[in-house]
Amino acid sequence: MSIAVIYGSTRENGNTEWLTDQVINGLSVEKIYLNEYSILPIKDERHTVAGFQEVADDYNSIIAKVLKHDILIFSTPIYWYSMSGTMKLFIDRWSQTLRDKNFPNFRAELGKKTAYVIAVGGDKPTIKALPMIQQFQYICDFFGMTFESYLIGKASKPGEMQLDTKAIAAANQMKLALKTHLESKS
Amino acid sequence: MSIAVIYGSTRENGNTEWLTDQVINGLSVEKIYLNEYSILPIKDERHTVAGFQEVADDYNSIIAKVLKHDILIFSTPIYWYSMSGTMKLFIDRWSQTLRDKNFPNFRAELGKKTAYVIAVGGDKPTIKALPMIQQFQYICDFFGMTFESYLIGKASKPGEMQLDTKAIAAANQMKLALKTHLESKS
Amino acid sequence: MSIAVIYGSTRENGNTEWLTDQVINGLSVEKIYLNEYSILPIKDERHTVAGFQEVADDYNSIIAKVLKHDILIFSTPIYWYSMSGTMKLFIDRWSQTLRDKNFPNFRAELGKKTAYVIAVGGDKPTIKALPMIQQFQYICDFFGMTFESYLIGKASKPGEMQLDTKAIAAANQMKLALKTHLESKS
Amino acid sequence: MSIAVIYGSTRENGNTEWLTDQVINGLSVEKIYLNEYSILPIKDERHTVAGFQEVADDYNSIIAKVLKHDILIFSTPIYWYSMSGTMKLFIDRWSQTLRDKNFPNFRAELGKKTAYVIAVGGDKPTIKALPMIQQFQYICDFFGMTFESYLIGKASKPGEMQLDTKAIAAANQMKLALKTHLESKS
Repeated sequence: MSIAVIYGSTRENGNTEWLTDQVINGLSVEKIYLNEYSILPIKDERHTVAGFQEVADDYNSIIAKVLKHDILIFSTPIYWYSMSGTMKLFIDRWSQTLRDKNFPNFRAELGKKTAYVIAVGGDKPTIKALPMIQQFQYICDFFGMTFESYLIGKASKPGEMQLDTKAIAAANQMKLALKTHLESKS
Repeated sequence: MSIAVIYGSTRENGNTEWLTDQVINGLSVEKIYLNEYSILPIKDERHTVAGFQEVADDYNSIIAKVLKHDILIFSTPIYWYSMSGTMKLFIDRWSQTLRDKNFPNFRAELGKKTAYVIAVGGDKPTIKALPMIQQFQYICDFFGMTFESYLIGKASKPGEMQLDTKAIAAANQMKLALKTHLESKS
Repeated sequence: MSIAVIYGSTRENGNTEWLTDQVINGLSVEKIYLNEYSILPIKDERHTVAGFQEVADDYNSIIAKVLKHDILIFSTPIYWYSMSGTMKLFIDRWSQTLRDKNFPNFRAELGKKTAYVIAVGGDKPTIKALPMIQQFQYICDFFGMTFESYLIGKASKPGEMQLDTKAIAAANQMKLALKTHLESKS
Repeated sequence: MSIAVIYGSTRENGNTEWLTDQVINGLSVEKIYLNEYSILPIKDERHTVAGFQEVADDYNSIIAKVLKHDILIFSTPIYWYSMSGTMKLFIDRWSQTLRDKNFPNFRAELGKKTAYVIAVGGDKPTIKALPMIQQFQYICDFFGMTFESYLIGKASKPGEMQLDTKAIAAANQMKLALKTHLESKS
């Protein structure tokens, strides 16, 4: 059992990363900062004769890393009430991987994984991020992936995350759940 | 009164564009195909000393075009139960424009506009795209923009859109509403 | 193939009924006006030794009627952003029927049916009734019932429903779909 | 500052009540068990000449009690992905109170209050109860009431609630928030 944390943030050491740290602190994880890579928007070539063409960016190397792990933590700031464009670019490309011969069991492999979502936003996130949570559920449903739980923090300016004691308590609970998860199935 | 159609599609002449054509056919609109432009992911520099830095891409020229119009039609394929990454990249950058001295009244200007959403997807879109519709409402609420109506089509393969007679009927209604809108306030 | 219309309205000839008439006009349906019956709130006795006790009201006779039909149209005014309490009382009792020996195949029988929802409200219903639509989807999912489509009208005062041309057009589409449904499978 | 807890449960000492106890234990509250009262379904008489007629049930005495308090905790089991019919009957009647001369400032008075929601269900409640949470937000928005926070527990059989450590931790946080709330404004 191992954990990948997939970060959709676009600044370093921000509130989303801080809240995520409360969850993963002390656990062994592979951190993947999407904004350090080049990920191009998907080009829908599902219906062309030639199908999807190879793309000269870092996406394939990232998804290969992700697939090595059992637990995926999606850690994203909430931009305009949904995941960051940086993270959306990454997920959109899954439609290409689903048809990529180099990843022949992509759907089934994702289906074995367990997902957690950590999201931080400034505008009533415990209400206004709920559509995003529902979208993550639909994504997980598509693959048969288990959507174990989610954690929503409220913060906008640097340092504000530390004030959301409710989210910090929930982060501790998520950490305990992760530990139990790791131990019970290792 | 004038109309901009903002396309988030990533292939030409797809189902989303076809359904949008049923709405705008015969109306004078400015079409903006986001995938023809370079739009970089926002880099969150809200809290740096220097603030947002100029970005060498096409975003500013696009938003300048958009702002000239009164009615904005967001036309997007549904990728993973939300707008395409291509469209999300565009909207994410609004956070930068909100702090851009070259667009001093951005929030107020958007607040005067009326938004329509046209979205097409293959996986139970009339249910599974509802979180995305709620997100568009939250976005409009932020600016005080009127979210006039939305239209969801069901299609996956090329040509399937023509079979969704319910969406086509709704497209005709949206077209009538747009015409009335244009005439009453011109 | 036959149709039951289950009305959750609490006044006669209201907007919800009028919109529903646009859908069922000319079709043979059994109309069930829930407010004409006595339906008591469910008493959760799932976990008592004796289990659910018989209730002296009209619920069982109504559910027996409903089960005779293949297509169920739930027609409800939108009260406080969800179905009327009158309709909720009826649906809540399904938990009792699931454990009632007199309805031994209740879950499987409902699973064979197709549901339509018609709802009318005054406060931005095409947005604010979406959570209710999602709830109907979850209810249908529980039974394996097909949630075929929904129709949301905007009206508050008597007669206002006639002004929502968009909903009326959608009602015509729903009527066509119902006709096709009836013919194809009879 | 004082607290009313409004229970929508239909059995005694159930999971919803147990989780609510974790929140209010040690605090002074007025407990209102809706199922101990007679509350008839609203009859929509908004548009009749005579308007709403007096109803011979306990509703008015309950709403009078509720209005005495500053903080309202809505504690409901999740029945079919929304609040219990028992609670819905109560809330539906607010439409009558809005037009009742005996409660002349009803809307404004509710607008000054702060709402908390505690809900317990058995079928993936942290996802499938989210539409209900959005509905409570819309209800609060209508009155200008503050929807402070919500707590969702997972339990079905008696005693299961004690196993949801995540919800129990969140209950503790809600209790702390309530205490702070009470002290800061008393």
